[in-house]
Amino acid sequence: MDMIDPWGSTIIDYEKLTEQFGIRAFKDVINEIPDASKLMTRGIIFGQRDYSRITDALNNNKNFATMTGMMPSGRMHIGHKMVVDQLKWYQRKGSDIYMSIADMEAYAARGISKSESRELALVEYIENYIALGLDVTKENFHLYLQSENDDVKNLAYLIGKKVTFSQMRSIYGFDNSTNIAHIYTPLLQVADILHPQLEKNGGPKPVIVPVGPDQDPHIRLTRDLAAKFNEEYGFIEPSATFHRFMTGLTGEKMSSSKPKTAIY
Amino acid sequence: MDMIDPWGSTIIDYEKLTEQFGIRAFKDVINEIPDASKLMTRGIIFGQRDYSRITDALNNNKNFATMTGMMPSGRMHIGHKMVVDQLKWYQRKGSDIYMSIADMEAYAARGISKSESRELALVEYIENYIALGLDVTKENFHLYLQSENDDVKNLAYLIGKKVTFSQMRSIYGFDNSTNIAHIYTPLLQVADILHPQLEKNGGPKPVIVPVGPDQDPHIRLTRDLAAKFNEEYGFIEPSATFHRFMTGLTGEKMSSSKPKTAIY
Repeated sequence: MDMIDPWGSTIIDYEKLTEQFGIRAFKDVINEIPDASKLMTRGIIFGQRDYSRITDALNNNKNFATMTGMMPSGRMHIGHKMVVDQLKWYQRKGSDIYMSIADMEAYAARGISKSESRELALVEYIENYIALGLDVTKENFHLYLQSENDDVKNLAYLIGKKVTFSQMRSIYGFDNSTNIAHIYTPLLQVADILHPQLEKNGGPKPVIVPVGPDQDPHIRLTRDLAAKFNEEYGFIEPSATFHRFMTGLTGEKMSSSKPKTAIY
Repeated sequence: MDMIDPWGSTIIDYEKLTEQFGIRAFKDVINEIPDASKLMTRGIIFGQRDYSRITDALNNNKNFATMTGMMPSGRMHIGHKMVVDQLKWYQRKGSDIYMSIADMEAYAARGISKSESRELALVEYIENYIALGLDVTKENFHLYLQSENDDVKNLAYLIGKKVTFSQMRSIYGFDNSTNIAHIYTPLLQVADILHPQLEKNGGPKPVIVPVGPDQDPHIRLTRDLAAKFNEEYGFIEPSATFHRFMTGLTGEKMSSSKPKTAIY
């Protein structure tokens, strides 16, 4: 079976994704969305999982949350604007916004220290997010460093009891030479996505995660673990949308880890 | 190669341990120990790794620490007294004592909840430790829950970058069906043992870990990772002693996880 590597920068075959990994077409739900954004109407957002939970919340004034993460691995480029535009749209719709600075992932996957992550996130990314019109001062905007969020760290360990090495291997392609911090890291992303549903954050609710298709492995693992811990925590399987990547200057995905691909 | 299972309760062949896993005889160092305890002189403590660092500290009034952990998996039994007696001896010698309540390990390995662990540790174990004469009120006695010690949790993740799944498999016998929380757990034990050497705890120093031989996998992994992070943190490879188990009522090791083996 093919595999998607969330830490790679390869070209994505969008049709194969929908066929092989069960991502559904975004156009199936677009008519139910009030004031759909341009990214939606123009097909930049091409896929979704369980988006009907979000249209239901949007149309019936129900509570929902939006989750995003950033791995501070280089300078911000115009590809990031696509995520910011989506966050702004959900923020206008009244959604709580959770933004994780994935400094633990940056350490395990790219060897970036916690202090570098913090610096890069605050100076490079957040300042640009503000410049692009995201209101990070709003009460419902929750920005945090993964390494400093105890709820996320504790939840990651708890849910790790219901996923085996072979499952992680089949989702992420880990092998015997993968280091344990890296093997553990996806649980932190899963906990990022699930923690808005903890009682202290208002309890179970629909959560939308707007991502590029390279992040779908995290979405699938999260949905699987949400179901496994539904009885204990009441978790609802999170929804996701998938957007096309901006093609980089070298033809591959634009990535801050590969400076030659990017327009800053 | 044979393997020791720290979560099992099998009979130990003490001679094989010294031959095969490189544990040295305790009698090699006993003459250098001031006021050796009865457990030492009577051969109950039969093995050691790098104990000369500790005799050096004892004889030259150098700073060192003693580390122990308890996994609250059942009622305390008289086998535990052996550890308490050793802690008392090191406490009299002026050593800082660190005691970890391994509630995260208890969750991953035995399915015991954090609140059960806390209750069991405080009511069942600590009260008995006090009754047995351990002074837990001393300033140099550091008792903590693993799940609430951020230094330990953060260090566990950091050091996880330098150990691969195949190393963990060869030390602990993990396989594809092992859950990720369990795979990650030994890093918490390693971090328990290394964290007395963090700058905020006074920096690098000899550390003695008195254990049963079933815990040697943790000792070996800790010593390996201490060496790998020596440059970054100055960690000294911790020392260990190994004591014979009290044979349980059923002939196997006395264990609180197997109530029929134990005298309470």
